Amino acid sequence: MQELMYEGKAKRVFSTDNQEELLLAYKDDATAFNGKKKESFRGKGELNNRISSEIFRKLDERGVSSHFLERLSDTEQLVRKTAIIPLEVVVRNIATGSLVRRIGIEEKTALTPPLLELYYKNDELDDPLINDRHALLLADITPGELMKIKEKALEVNDVLREIFEDCDLSLVDFKLEFGSTGNGDIILSDEVSPDTCRLWDRETGEKMDKDVFREGTGELVPVYEKILQRLEDSTCAK
Amino acid sequence: MQELMYEGKAKRVFSTDNQEELLLAYKDDATAFNGKKKESFRGKGELNNRISSEIFRKLDERGVSSHFLERLSDTEQLVRKTAIIPLEVVVRNIATGSLVRRIGIEEKTALTPPLLELYYKNDELDDPLINDRHALLLADITPGELMKIKEKALEVNDVLREIFEDCDLSLVDFKLEFGSTGNGDIILSDEVSPDTCRLWDRETGEKMDKDVFREGTGELVPVYEKILQRLEDSTCAK
Ligand SMILES: Nc1ncnc2c1ncn2[C@@H]1O[C@H](COP(=O)(O)OP(=O)(O)O)[C@@H](O)[C@H]1O
Ligand SMILES: Nc1ncnc2c1ncn2[C@@H]1O[C@H](COP(=O)(O)OP(=O)(O)O)[C@@H](O)[C@H]1O
Ligand SMILES: [Mg+2]
Ligand SMILES: [Mg+2]
Repeated sequence: MQELMYEGKAKRVFSTDNQEELLLAYKDDATAFNGKKKESFRGKGELNNRISSEIFRKLDERGVSSHFLERLSDTEQLVRKTAIIPLEVVVRNIATGSLVRRIGIEEKTALTPPLLELYYKNDELDDPLINDRHALLLADITPGELMKIKEKALEVNDVLREIFEDCDLSLVDFKLEFGSTGNGDIILSDEVSPDTCRLWDRETGEKMDKDVFREGTGELVPVYEKILQRLEDSTCAK
Repeated sequence: MQELMYEGKAKRVFSTDNQEELLLAYKDDATAFNGKKKESFRGKGELNNRISSEIFRKLDERGVSSHFLERLSDTEQLVRKTAIIPLEVVVRNIATGSLVRRIGIEEKTALTPPLLELYYKNDELDDPLINDRHALLLADITPGELMKIKEKALEVNDVLREIFEDCDLSLVDFKLEFGSTGNGDIILSDEVSPDTCRLWDRETGEKMDKDVFREGTGELVPVYEKILQRLEDSTCAK
């Protein structure tokens, strides 16, 4: 028996017969600027479900585990249920977007080592940037757990960069969420997709992610189709 | 020969005959919301010069050194010249103001241990909150120096709390600036005054700092006069 537990901006979350698993159903909605810009794109849900599943599979292949269990249908995937930690963990390899606006660093500055940021996952407060001490006030985690989350995010960055490099894509930045399982482990959750990653074509520099929607500079669906195609091609090339 | 080097929102900075020293002249201007609210209060400059001098003296007495050398006149003080590190180091003992707005924590929540925040001192960017990694990108300091700055700020908090407790004032939060001297030391600089500290009367809870101006809830000069009076009284009581 599946019951709708929560409807988010990009996915619906359903309970399953297994207490420890959830079904994520990807929606066709695209939102930006914390929901102030919103549009629906036929096929987006399926694309992100396939892309996210494929990326979680590739991460797992390279030793990075996550909540992902199985893609169930075009738009649905089965995941391990977690208590989501209300932090958005952002890793940046190249300066763009809000970082440039916030600190005035030059667009496209290479960030080596990668720059990690924490945001408080709270739509009402517009997901504010926070520091480590805020995070410990806001999330029910220990300093050691926060350190592990940061290490894990940087490890995900290393592996994701390789995965996208094989697709001729440069991983500019991305957002991760982590959750606690019943036995106290903290695992990578939510999604990894062009909604949550900035991806630039390594040849042309073309933006191939949700920025085409945010900035109104291109068609979302064809771009996401290309991402899926490249991910699948890179699998077959092995 | 004194030459105007820089005119800030609250002080003018003059060179002196000694290459390693500067003269700070406190102005009567009060600004809030990054200069968007501005007013002049006859006597404010003198009060802040006296208050800041007295606090730096008391800090020094308790083993916390700073750039402060000597009060020269009603509105002027002599300080060691530093290269100001473009960070505003904020320490909070009680949640209020922008922290409450940013993370939705309840007003007046006690923060134990004290909460330290870094802001990028940049008027054009509206002094944004930053994390440690941003700070290392923006300020020409090493991770070790950043750690020392944070330790020093927390030490200043411990000592300032005592100083203000002797004045029946609760130190809610405050902002510090640090600067590098010619020989590479990093020392406490700028000012410590009701412009840069939130001070609440320990009996009545009354706000006795620039918030009376920010919020338009009282007269600034009489409030600052009380602060100076209490600081001087607490000196004599020893
Ligand atoms: N493994 C999981 N267990 C529980 N919740 C999850 C898991 N993975 C993702 N979620 C949550 O599912 C919700 C729906 O996703 P989404 O539509 O992206 O929501 P939002 O609008 O909050 O970003 C989010 O709150 C996300 O944190
Ligand atoms: N010891 C010092 N050496 C050099 N500059 C200093 C020192 N102490 C304070 N300053 C700087 O003096 C300037 C004038 O102060 P203020 O009027 O508060 O300026 P602002 O408008 O930038 O806050 C500030 O930029 C401050 O950082
Ligand atoms: Mg989401
Ligand atoms: Mg100032």
